[in-house]
Amino acid sequence: MSKRNSKEIPDIVIGRLPVYLRTLRLLADDGRDVTSSQELGEHLGISSAQIRKDLSHFGEFGKQGTGYNISFLCNQLQKILNVDRIWPVVLVGAGSLGNAIANYAGFESRGFRIVAIFDEDSKKIGQAMGPVHVDDFAHLSRRIEETGAQIAVIAVPTHVAQRVADQLVEAGLVSILCYAPITLTTPSHVRVEYIDPVIHFQHMTYYLG
Amino acid sequence: MSKRNSKEIPDIVIGRLPVYLRTLRLLADDGRDVTSSQELGEHLGISSAQIRKDLSHFGEFGKQGTGYNISFLCNQLQKILNVDRIWPVVLVGAGSLGNAIANYAGFESRGFRIVAIFDEDSKKIGQAMGPVHVDDFAHLSRRIEETGAQIAVIAVPTHVAQRVADQLVEAGLVSILCYAPITLTTPSHVRVEYIDPVIHFQHMTYYLG
Repeated sequence: MSKRNSKEIPDIVIGRLPVYLRTLRLLADDGRDVTSSQELGEHLGISSAQIRKDLSHFGEFGKQGTGYNISFLCNQLQKILNVDRIWPVVLVGAGSLGNAIANYAGFESRGFRIVAIFDEDSKKIGQAMGPVHVDDFAHLSRRIEETGAQIAVIAVPTHVAQRVADQLVEAGLVSILCYAPITLTTPSHVRVEYIDPVIHFQHMTYYLG
Repeated sequence: MSKRNSKEIPDIVIGRLPVYLRTLRLLADDGRDVTSSQELGEHLGISSAQIRKDLSHFGEFGKQGTGYNISFLCNQLQKILNVDRIWPVVLVGAGSLGNAIANYAGFESRGFRIVAIFDEDSKKIGQAMGPVHVDDFAHLSRRIEETGAQIAVIAVPTHVAQRVADQLVEAGLVSILCYAPITLTTPSHVRVEYIDPVIHFQHMTYYLG
């Protein structure tokens, strides 16, 4: 669901790279040094040919018969995905979902840091949540300028999600991850992705009918 | 990431149908009666040709020049995805993430109902959470038998996720949606999908580098 892809590699291929990276890092955590497209494919339910084809867009990462060096391939994927650095992320919504996201342990080691959390509820503003204190949503523009964040997470109720998105775009954000079950309207330079459990459930029930 | 697809339609096509359905329902909520593959494509960042090709696997849903009847196409997609009924879902993990999922408003209207929530923490067991009270994880097998659930959500810390998955599989669950940032090991008849915000962030940063 790309809106742009300056490097002309299919967006669907780009979308699989983070999945490969996650799996490779889990193998590395298990003490493994080498893997194969066959093994990765079995883990992920993707054909080994597809994995080799996806990776071939970016270079030659393994040799026939010897497989992939996990640490090398992890480093290469991190460079390709630009997560060989830490990206500041702002989070809007300090409810139970926002709290869960703020306390998610897997961000920093994978390239991301929650640098600000916003809410409009005066009872929540000032409270500690994960790594930061909840800030007034009215301070959004200033805080985005201070932090240099380009990525935002929307974890607010559905009926306010579009308004929040509008203000994020106005404040200069270009990448939005939306947990509210709506399709946001945004300018074409803004990339929006969605997290919606029902999309996954409905994918599953196709096979259960 | 399908492990099986008895109807021989690519799993990636099946995976897009819920996204089409969500978008169509949002258009319907806006009072719209008719749409086109062009309009859907613009909403979703997918080509209109891809949408027409995806839908053509299942029949003829629109006429050249007149577009799709939204209500009819919604009904057809709901039947194809088997969400013209309500599926019971069990949730494991009553922390802030579990609480957010339990209180998510978008399940029932889209085919799903949380019928049980499990935790091992005696302080959480018995508490009201969303539509039910938190149950002891030790009651998992009995409650799954009582509810007939085939779908489970894992919203527990990473280090216990595999153990929870093992017990879910043992209790007969065949579809698991996992929020923990790991790749679960499960038998081939079990379908696992993952929700991981970092996968989306890393997809975004490819375009930001």
